[in-house]
Amino acid sequence: MTTTTDLCFLSLQELATRIAAKDVSPVEATEAVLERIERLNPKLNAYITVMAGQALAGARAAADEIAAGKYRGPLHGVPVGVKDLCQTKGVRTTAGSKILADWVPDEDATVVRKLRDAGAVIVGKTHLHEWAFGATGINPHYGPAHNPWNVDCITGGSSSGSAVAVAAGMCFAALGSDTGGSIRIPSALCGVTGIKPTYGRVSTRNVIPLSWSLDHIGPMARTARDCALVLGAIAGHDPEEATSADTPVDDYAAKTEGGLRGLRVGVPAQAFESAEGEVSSIVQEAVATLARLGAKVEHIDLPQLDAMWATAGAVLLSEAATYHKEHIEQRPEDYGEDVIGRLRAGLELKAVDLVQGYRALAEIRRTCDDTLLNGLDLLAQPATQRVAVPIEEAKQDDPTLGLTRLTAQFDVTGQPACSVPCGWTKAGLPVGLQLVGRSFQEGTVLRAAHAFETQSGVPRPQPAVE
Amino acid sequence: MTTTTDLCFLSLQELATRIAAKDVSPVEATEAVLERIERLNPKLNAYITVMAGQALAGARAAADEIAAGKYRGPLHGVPVGVKDLCQTKGVRTTAGSKILADWVPDEDATVVRKLRDAGAVIVGKTHLHEWAFGATGINPHYGPAHNPWNVDCITGGSSSGSAVAVAAGMCFAALGSDTGGSIRIPSALCGVTGIKPTYGRVSTRNVIPLSWSLDHIGPMARTARDCALVLGAIAGHDPEEATSADTPVDDYAAKTEGGLRGLRVGVPAQAFESAEGEVSSIVQEAVATLARLGAKVEHIDLPQLDAMWATAGAVLLSEAATYHKEHIEQRPEDYGEDVIGRLRAGLELKAVDLVQGYRALAEIRRTCDDTLLNGLDLLAQPATQRVAVPIEEAKQDDPTLGLTRLTAQFDVTGQPACSVPCGWTKAGLPVGLQLVGRSFQEGTVLRAAHAFETQSGVPRPQPAVE
Repeated sequence: MTTTTDLCFLSLQELATRIAAKDVSPVEATEAVLERIERLNPKLNAYITVMAGQALAGARAAADEIAAGKYRGPLHGVPVGVKDLCQTKGVRTTAGSKILADWVPDEDATVVRKLRDAGAVIVGKTHLHEWAFGATGINPHYGPAHNPWNVDCITGGSSSGSAVAVAAGMCFAALGSDTGGSIRIPSALCGVTGIKPTYGRVSTRNVIPLSWSLDHIGPMARTARDCALVLGAIAGHDPEEATSADTPVDDYAAKTEGGLRGLRVGVPAQAFESAEGEVSSIVQEAVATLARLGAKVEHIDLPQLDAMWATAGAVLLSEAATYHKEHIEQRPEDYGEDVIGRLRAGLELKAVDLVQGYRALAEIRRTCDDTLLNGLDLLAQPATQRVAVPIEEAKQDDPTLGLTRLTAQFDVTGQPACSVPCGWTKAGLPVGLQLVGRSFQEGTVLRAAHAFETQSGVPRPQPAVE
Repeated sequence: MTTTTDLCFLSLQELATRIAAKDVSPVEATEAVLERIERLNPKLNAYITVMAGQALAGARAAADEIAAGKYRGPLHGVPVGVKDLCQTKGVRTTAGSKILADWVPDEDATVVRKLRDAGAVIVGKTHLHEWAFGATGINPHYGPAHNPWNVDCITGGSSSGSAVAVAAGMCFAALGSDTGGSIRIPSALCGVTGIKPTYGRVSTRNVIPLSWSLDHIGPMARTARDCALVLGAIAGHDPEEATSADTPVDDYAAKTEGGLRGLRVGVPAQAFESAEGEVSSIVQEAVATLARLGAKVEHIDLPQLDAMWATAGAVLLSEAATYHKEHIEQRPEDYGEDVIGRLRAGLELKAVDLVQGYRALAEIRRTCDDTLLNGLDLLAQPATQRVAVPIEEAKQDDPTLGLTRLTAQFDVTGQPACSVPCGWTKAGLPVGLQLVGRSFQEGTVLRAAHAFETQSGVPRPQPAVE
């Protein structure tokens, strides 16, 4: 017998198979997820807004369509979460802020519309670091999100709630956004798989921006294959958006096949040196596993990544400050201290410094496949330098800068990068292996992640959160 | 008998035909042009640096190749001028400045290399407004360029020398650059044809920048067909440049055929209202001619162009100030007053203002073909509000802002735009008809310009500068 917990922890792909076979109805799956949210959300704070009524209506509509033989594909009838900076028509979109606490958009984000078109059932808007501008998941207006592996620990952020909801079986996949690591960091710290696609691959239209030139939207799920299924639904050119890429979309789910044999994987020593001992050795072990499974692993030098990020930092700070300028001046008290501090730094910057930042960014994106992945298919390194720290510790000493140290550089290059769980520390906290691919080669990243998940023998336990 | 003056005033295409037929040798053409430069340059100041030795050697090499049956195409053996902000390996590149007065680059600009690859003979580096940052052609370090139609009048700028050299038979074509109108303004004021191609169509690599996001390189010549021949040689994707467009290149010379029949031409009333009476009526007459020759002319509203330019102005000022920052601080006395005034304004700008400028620019470029040329092939309007003014008058009251008023907006949109001579005032000064096309439709712009040149009956006299 399948318990509702078992049902909630099916992979998205398995649920899709059962829905298509009419073994499980979208209503049943949605009810199970909503029940679980009701029970666990007070403890984990994964959702800022639960959309129970809409979700059930959507699930019933999906069930009717499928009963009528109109099956839309693998997301049809599947309960998913959406980070609460993606606009949802008729449902408040807070961006984790006080300022937008009651804002109800009248348009969906392109990615939300694409999820709906694919038949997905949106169950709620997930928790995030205020305005997505931080990496802890501690939010002064909505409280901290809690790590399912240890509820006293941070989740990482900014896509905190999406990671928690996926990890704790409160949805089958969720959308996150990543400007300095906000998909990969909480994926790593909460033990789920998340991919930041190539810059421009997924529309950011009608998503509250942090930094237009660095923002990426991507999926988080319990497997790489599930990420591929969601990415297939949300990727593609958005003619309404100047920064959207007009590059053909791959069949990402099909691309996950093929295994590791023949893939050339570069391993930058610097990233391992900067990581905590236990994180470093777990990821080193994962890299050895990649080699054992057929990848050609070579150690490489990855120079100047800090300098790269310092340059692009002017872009992030300036763009964020531009979006927030009016509110900073009029409602400074409605911002958290960490966020308004960063925004004020952006207000002070000179245009001439920003010009250099944009030029460096354009040049890095033009050359990064040659300079960083010269002759390689992938880079492999830790996603974060450390595992989740206690919430109380993070409140004293904001770990955002350290947490983004190994992720932010790939928001600058714009290359696709995922975090896949590769082990747990003795204290029971998950560690993420980061795999980075060439621009628009999301398929290769997901193929390696899928091979690791299915062939490494590393167990993928469920967190004990009941 | 062909006099050397007749030879110098052949169209580029006619010269090419004669060179290919071995009726004229590249050496003969180059000697005629160099002799003319020697005679007229003291009066007109078209060239900052004459490359007589290199040019003759190049002409001889071209002659040898052609004699050996290795004909490269229509630029082979043709004397051309290059605006003195395009780097020339081994030949000083001043950018019209004191600071670079003795700078000898060790690399060619991509466009210079492309001209050389096409077999062109570069006879010299043409005069420009200091750093290309002004529209008069009055230069504090190299003196003013003089208008061949009245040597007491300005040439317009910043590609002053290229326009003069073409107009006065001191080359068969020349390269200009256009950031706010710097190809079209001197083309209009000196009575030649010049086209600013689509942004990204022609590489700006190793060209001294004014503003990376707004700089365009393009040809100036005595006919639209000649512009097409040069554009064909210099257009194309430059993999070394992040802003270079990867759009296929057309056969622009072939595209000039086809006449005006069926072309839908929009005529914005505002541009005519803002022009001087005589300019306005000459261009109105030209528009009537377009209709008579088969174009479907309709009057349209072209809103918000001033607002568009105001927004993009932050981009221009910031980028220019970024390039010049160090020199402004260390050698302010080596700048002309007008230029350093503009640059200092750029140093003061805030990053948050620039972010808005870049976002507006990206949005305008994404939508301009739909918003400005909705259902149209071309816009037709004056290139400038006025004809050339006396140099002494321009020294008192800088007409740069007025001169760029009708051109700068198409550096913002990035759409291709040419100026073609369409009449002369009673005082004998030329007037330019500006034709603006859809992005990457240079062929349509040149087709209309060619039809006007060959079918309108408007004479194209030579200036009396002997």
